[in-house]
Amino acid sequence: MASIFTKIINRELPAAIIAEDDQHIAFLDIQPLVKGHVLVVPKREVDYLFDLSDEEYASLQLFAKKVAKAVDSAISCTRVGVAVIGLEVPHVHIHLVPLNSMEDINFTRAKMKPSKEELQETAELIASHL
Amino acid sequence: MASIFTKIINRELPAAIIAEDDQHIAFLDIQPLVKGHVLVVPKREVDYLFDLSDEEYASLQLFAKKVAKAVDSAISCTRVGVAVIGLEVPHVHIHLVPLNSMEDINFTRAKMKPSKEELQETAELIASHL
Repeated sequence: MASIFTKIINRELPAAIIAEDDQHIAFLDIQPLVKGHVLVVPKREVDYLFDLSDEEYASLQLFAKKVAKAVDSAISCTRVGVAVIGLEVPHVHIHLVPLNSMEDINFTRAKMKPSKEELQETAELIASHL
Repeated sequence: MASIFTKIINRELPAAIIAEDDQHIAFLDIQPLVKGHVLVVPKREVDYLFDLSDEEYASLQLFAKKVAKAVDSAISCTRVGVAVIGLEVPHVHIHLVPLNSMEDINFTRAKMKPSKEELQETAELIASHL
């Protein structure tokens, strides 16, 4: 069965998309740790980051770097943190999280619940810095 | 002043080193979240991950991938998680954390305090899988 991220890629599920190319997509996490929390995903549905080929992996990381710089410009933060955990959705995703403190990247804490409109506005703001 | 990681690179501070090449080094975190928690560091002392050049950044990530695969083989875990936070030491470091649960990669929780001998033993175990 297609992952929820594949469904987003195929436009079968909505998402606040920030950037996309042939191999990658970046959109906002719908349950962000903080405002501007982005997921960067390879279009090929692979479960585990380290199972990507070296080429796919480097390409994904460079795509994430471009998006991270836009997040850093768009969102007030000390820096953009990175996490790849992968215990939930079995489709590689890099979390980009604008950080002001260590607590901002604690995945065990309660998530935010922004509206679709708020997510779309944040996505457009980040995209405008690409 | 040289960062603590530069001092490790220059052998002015001890560390349980796992792998090293001209541009990168990997060693065990002395206050690990879990056994096998590795730091992957570029030898050039840059504060922020996204300030590395694309070439340096991709090269560092590929070095981290090799080390992560060894961690995954050496340490019992569901998968190896990744985090880059950088609010403490101003020298880029990628955390590789063997995960069995989300709590294993919660940086706000209490760290372990393994002995030098335990760290050395774990480093040798991981290095044997490279």
